[in-house]
Amino acid sequence: MNANPDHLLDKISQLDTSAAQYYPNSSKIYVAGSRADLQVPMREIALTPTETESGVEENPPIRVYDSSGIYSDASASIDLRAGLAPIRSAWITERGDTEQLDSVTSNFGRARQSDVKTAHLRFEHIKQPLRAKPGLNVTQLHYARQGIITPEMEFIAIRENMSRQQATEQAGLAGQHHGQSFGASIPQEITPGFVREEVAMGRAIIPANINHPEIEPMIIGRNFLVKVNANIGNSAVSSSIEEEVEKMTWSALWGADTVMDLSTGKNIHETREWIIRNSMVPIGTVPIYQALEKVDGIAEDLSWEIYRDTLIEQAEQGVDYFTIHAGVLLRYVPLTAKRVTGIVSRGGAILAKWCLAHHTENFLYTHFEDICEIMKAYDVSFSLGDGLRPGSVADANDAAQFGELETLGELTKLAWKHDVQTIIEGPGHIPMHMIKENMDKQLEVCDEAPFYTLGPLTTDIAPGYDHITSGIGAAMIGWYGCAMLCYVTPKEHLGLPNKQDVKDGLMAYKIAAHAADLAKGHPGAQLRDNAISKARFEFRWEDQFNLGLDPTTARAFHDETLPKQSGKVAHFCSMCGPKFCSMKISQEVRDYAASKEMDNVDVAIQSGMEEMADEYNQQGRRLYHKV
Amino acid sequence: MNANPDHLLDKISQLDTSAAQYYPNSSKIYVAGSRADLQVPMREIALTPTETESGVEENPPIRVYDSSGIYSDASASIDLRAGLAPIRSAWITERGDTEQLDSVTSNFGRARQSDVKTAHLRFEHIKQPLRAKPGLNVTQLHYARQGIITPEMEFIAIRENMSRQQATEQAGLAGQHHGQSFGASIPQEITPGFVREEVAMGRAIIPANINHPEIEPMIIGRNFLVKVNANIGNSAVSSSIEEEVEKMTWSALWGADTVMDLSTGKNIHETREWIIRNSMVPIGTVPIYQALEKVDGIAEDLSWEIYRDTLIEQAEQGVDYFTIHAGVLLRYVPLTAKRVTGIVSRGGAILAKWCLAHHTENFLYTHFEDICEIMKAYDVSFSLGDGLRPGSVADANDAAQFGELETLGELTKLAWKHDVQTIIEGPGHIPMHMIKENMDKQLEVCDEAPFYTLGPLTTDIAPGYDHITSGIGAAMIGWYGCAMLCYVTPKEHLGLPNKQDVKDGLMAYKIAAHAADLAKGHPGAQLRDNAISKARFEFRWEDQFNLGLDPTTARAFHDETLPKQSGKVAHFCSMCGPKFCSMKISQEVRDYAASKEMDNVDVAIQSGMEEMADEYNQQGRRLYHKV
Repeated sequence: MNANPDHLLDKISQLDTSAAQYYPNSSKIYVAGSRADLQVPMREIALTPTETESGVEENPPIRVYDSSGIYSDASASIDLRAGLAPIRSAWITERGDTEQLDSVTSNFGRARQSDVKTAHLRFEHIKQPLRAKPGLNVTQLHYARQGIITPEMEFIAIRENMSRQQATEQAGLAGQHHGQSFGASIPQEITPGFVREEVAMGRAIIPANINHPEIEPMIIGRNFLVKVNANIGNSAVSSSIEEEVEKMTWSALWGADTVMDLSTGKNIHETREWIIRNSMVPIGTVPIYQALEKVDGIAEDLSWEIYRDTLIEQAEQGVDYFTIHAGVLLRYVPLTAKRVTGIVSRGGAILAKWCLAHHTENFLYTHFEDICEIMKAYDVSFSLGDGLRPGSVADANDAAQFGELETLGELTKLAWKHDVQTIIEGPGHIPMHMIKENMDKQLEVCDEAPFYTLGPLTTDIAPGYDHITSGIGAAMIGWYGCAMLCYVTPKEHLGLPNKQDVKDGLMAYKIAAHAADLAKGHPGAQLRDNAISKARFEFRWEDQFNLGLDPTTARAFHDETLPKQSGKVAHFCSMCGPKFCSMKISQEVRDYAASKEMDNVDVAIQSGMEEMADEYNQQGRRLYHKV
Repeated sequence: MNANPDHLLDKISQLDTSAAQYYPNSSKIYVAGSRADLQVPMREIALTPTETESGVEENPPIRVYDSSGIYSDASASIDLRAGLAPIRSAWITERGDTEQLDSVTSNFGRARQSDVKTAHLRFEHIKQPLRAKPGLNVTQLHYARQGIITPEMEFIAIRENMSRQQATEQAGLAGQHHGQSFGASIPQEITPGFVREEVAMGRAIIPANINHPEIEPMIIGRNFLVKVNANIGNSAVSSSIEEEVEKMTWSALWGADTVMDLSTGKNIHETREWIIRNSMVPIGTVPIYQALEKVDGIAEDLSWEIYRDTLIEQAEQGVDYFTIHAGVLLRYVPLTAKRVTGIVSRGGAILAKWCLAHHTENFLYTHFEDICEIMKAYDVSFSLGDGLRPGSVADANDAAQFGELETLGELTKLAWKHDVQTIIEGPGHIPMHMIKENMDKQLEVCDEAPFYTLGPLTTDIAPGYDHITSGIGAAMIGWYGCAMLCYVTPKEHLGLPNKQDVKDGLMAYKIAAHAADLAKGHPGAQLRDNAISKARFEFRWEDQFNLGLDPTTARAFHDETLPKQSGKVAHFCSMCGPKFCSMKISQEVRDYAASKEMDNVDVAIQSGMEEMADEYNQQGRRLYHKV
């Protein structure tokens, strides 16, 4: 495919990645930090005023966390062929601990850059990579442990503190429940210093490869907002480069905080370059996939040398985190033989096969410190892969799974010895009552390194709906303390997701993440819920749509039964019809109560209903004298 | 609409309600009870054999709980104009405690039956209603307390015990996790005696109006499988009789255990008759909706007399349970005035308005024992409505909500005094960390009467996706002990659901209910998960589709990327392509281990991985000698 040199570039040029159209009445705003080149993007949703009998009440705009980059900035000019502006370049250069190489280090990468057969697929503006100066360590964890607050940390503090600041400003909407945080230490205010501390303790990571200066920094840790990852990537039987670039911007538009490129088909190297150069969200990969392609899919032919070259190839392109299945130890492999679904992780299966074929320990485990040396030279974060995760509820929380988790805990400490940022991948397929054990065990075994789980799916019986089977588990484990949720699309177990599937998966996972934030009690998290509920109660239909995760779908659903413009200002909807609306009646109740002795109502609420019941029974006869 | 007399009947005749097409390779089976007319329906999914190198292994068929009635029986002849066969008639008659009336009791019902204007909308074979003989009580609760095991109870025991029996028969697939039941008493075997005990204690109900002999009995209680309700019904601005009949059969096809007809528009009486006569699942209603129609939507004009006539009208048609908002007390109404979303229950709002207008206590509360007299004469069950449920997370678990719940507890005891079966309705909009408090408080206050909740929705920010925001909460509260989950469709807050929305809502809720059954540890619940996981692992694609909740969608998703028949026998899928499949590699691992010393592996699994790790390290070199 793409045999015609102009074909890909034309297709890339023709992609419509503009995202502003999906968020009516929203505008992109930038909150400035302590330096001119530190501009934190947010999306601000403008609202209409509430009209009451006593006059007009303004509804202040609501700002929301925004992962969609300049694609949702109506004033930005987007050129996918040129890539995004490298907004972090100065920050990286100023630290003085990196050097630009004359050429890429990887043999494969070098060969690929000069391969005429793939020239027509190549991104046109590849820069020479950066690397840490010899002996230096350029990870955010390293800086944090030195007490340095980087611009990345400040950027994140402003971004994460936004909902808190807004709640302070909009006191009327800010009321919220306390939450139950299961031992997390969620602060009232997110300061740059707090970000540094959390990173220094290993409780949070900032995936930010020095060769990916285009990213808008974000953080993964359980004392911050729960994050969501979307997987994209082609396979041998499906998809193309331009589709994957489009899926990346599409994912970020619908709220993906990071994107993993899991390509296993053709042109992995070129696909990745296009994705990274156009991505403001961190990109993760599973390098063993590409390494396997290099040995024609024969797992036994994998070697440390090929894998190492792949790590460096990808690190120099700018991949922000690597899934590395270093915990798939030889001794755990036979523990999977009696499982209902064996090994379901591709990486896990490849390494298990390698281990068996060579009757030797997993080379990712034996070379783990060599890998750390590479990671810290580019600030690539570990995402320690759960190659032995359960593929069915039958296999949940078994000896193979928890054995591997203990090894991942051991490797976490080794990574931290090198100041390499680390998160831990988790399952998978877990019935509800066994989810918390996963979270608790992970925190204990991995010394509070962030957990990053796939779902988990809470039942196996709904192929075609696994965004829901897993969205349930994801919400719960997010509440319990999982820092990032890897989405599952409706196509899970069935096929490669298309754009609609990507969106459906993200919607389920943005719901799960936000439900978790509410349950944990993140200050300000409930502000958006309160704003949309107020809009709903006041029949501000457009505001209700625009405050939602997916305004266009909400509007379309409403219009199916009440398509005319008048429906959008009606004080009723198609569910009950004009005479029958509970919200309308409820407003009458409220108006009535408001016209009477509201102070007494307040007292009643505060002093509890029990003791006031009798009093109200008495008062009622006076209070609600028939009008 | 339907002004042409032939119009509705033609449309009804033309409806395609046959459901067998949606479940390929399934057949309807009937398990006989102790008498010839007691035939319990189940759906049996035939599976293909597993082909291994050592020969062919048969996969026994999987039976699943089936709410779809004869509509999914390919051999049944369906005639919507005639209605379903009254399979319970003999059971009811034999008890000798009922009498057939000469005409309907309700004034409205009588007028409606002879109204020429609605003649063209009328079901053609209306029978005269049954009623308890004077002074007698015909509720299943009454029989249970007398020690009587009814045919309904035996039917339910066979139906609920099916997964247990199957697990016993299919030992190889039956392994499952224990579950965490939060104080529920889930037995190893469901016997008719156990059903009777649970009903007698009020911990479960069998909604089964003597005027709805067409139903296939089912039970609602937390020691049984979690049930799902689907709401249908027209409104003043949308939908027609034939659409509602179709939605009812469609709901049951996708797993609705009960259906509530929430019609508020035209021809409520006729719509209900059509639905009941063709429904094998219990039908619930909210009688205040129709009562309000009778007073032209003016809540203040409601009276006990009009309401009473409506209860009798509907009871004599065969409604199995009534939502009755008798807990909306005058003293609670002002507690809602400061809420973000006031009163969102239609019934609650109507009664609140009535209470305020008349400065008088809710007439459903003051006439509660009069209502009990009606309920026990037909065996209509109470679904005590939560008219003050929260409409936003901001209002969750507040004084108004919990005040009403306490009153519902008081009314439960009153209903039980009359041997009237009772369930309690619950919220609504509740963030995750506040869900369990709802369940615990309900069990305590209502003496373990079954809880029946709407969701709850765990966040307010996703209009268009509230089947998911609420599916999360529904799964959790089902696990905690909620007996029935009222579905929410994607159209919630936006419009009236169409067929696709009904299906989408049901899929989310069947997932939630089953995830809850797994987490509670219902014996045999995991059998279907295990069967589908085995099919998945063995690349039996058709079996995987057919074992799922929605075979046609799963197949369609698969076919999007691998449409040819060869794809359905391929040992790979479009996600990874042919060379790269983890399942395939995993099978190789298993084959290898199987050919070696599996006994040692068993020992390893049993004695725990820790102590065996070293041994495997040693053994590994021998066990996995390179082939």
